[in-house]
Amino acid sequence: MWIEIDNKLKAEFQFDSFVSAFAFMTKVAFIAEKMDHHPNWSNVYNKVSIELSTHDAGNIITEKDHQLAREIDKLLK
Amino acid sequence: MWIEIDNKLKAEFQFDSFVSAFAFMTKVAFIAEKMDHHPNWSNVYNKVSIELSTHDAGNIITEKDHQLAREIDKLLK
Amino acid sequence: MWIEIDNKLKAEFQFDSFVSAFAFMTKVAFIAEKMDHHPNWSNVYNKVSIELSTHDAGNIITEKDHQLAREIDKLLK
Amino acid sequence: MWIEIDNKLKAEFQFDSFVSAFAFMTKVAFIAEKMDHHPNWSNVYNKVSIELSTHDAGNIITEKDHQLAREIDKLLK
Repeated sequence: MWIEIDNKLKAEFQFDSFVSAFAFMTKVAFIAEKMDHHPNWSNVYNKVSIELSTHDAGNIITEKDHQLAREIDKLLK
Repeated sequence: MWIEIDNKLKAEFQFDSFVSAFAFMTKVAFIAEKMDHHPNWSNVYNKVSIELSTHDAGNIITEKDHQLAREIDKLLK
Repeated sequence: MWIEIDNKLKAEFQFDSFVSAFAFMTKVAFIAEKMDHHPNWSNVYNKVSIELSTHDAGNIITEKDHQLAREIDKLLK
Repeated sequence: MWIEIDNKLKAEFQFDSFVSAFAFMTKVAFIAEKMDHHPNWSNVYNKVSIELSTHDAGNIITEKDHQLAREIDKLLK
């Protein structure tokens, strides 16, 4: 579901409503804050797009991005 | 799952984590705000307790409470 | 603070932390859901970018967008 | 603003609306999750009541509770 492109790890998620999309974002926000590793993400209605890269490493994909991606995937199981 | 007691509609919900419990609360909060009918609720870790009654009707259970309870149940399906 | 560009009403907001930015987004989300008019928005760390246009009117700026923009501004007073 | 009673640190907070109260709860939730120390709290409309004690220490007030209380107070400055 995640693809690597332009030195970013990207994924798109779709939900049944804006409320479901935003509740998902809330869970991701908790994880991101706990890891102190925050996504570049956008939302429109029921869709959420997430891009992950590591600013401190020069905006490339690092193990932190893969870890956050795995935690996000766990939310959807 | 909902019981009527002391002129209130009550239910308890348990989740796998605090984050899941709070994401559920976020969804309920959206519904409550949209209906302009707000719960009396509490949370500790992964548990959420909700009590519904209608203040404007003299703190008794009304159709609005049953409607909010049904909307909350839908979130868990 | 809002500018009109490419048939969209756009604004950027900056906060003291990711948590403050996300709490602002939560408030905006409540307003958007209540109005049934949802933004196209993005966040990275403490920054939130919001774009408003009306899909049902052919992706142009309508009174609904101006109204949502005003409500968002009220949150920051 | 916080009082010690029954081995708990308690405070009540009032806001201008349910949405403001819930946005405050969202911020507190982030802090609590990050500290892995969660409140026993309740909300009705624009009011939030928070009780803090440390389960692992036998439900008494510990330094963790005072620390969480200080972090919550910072949110309101």
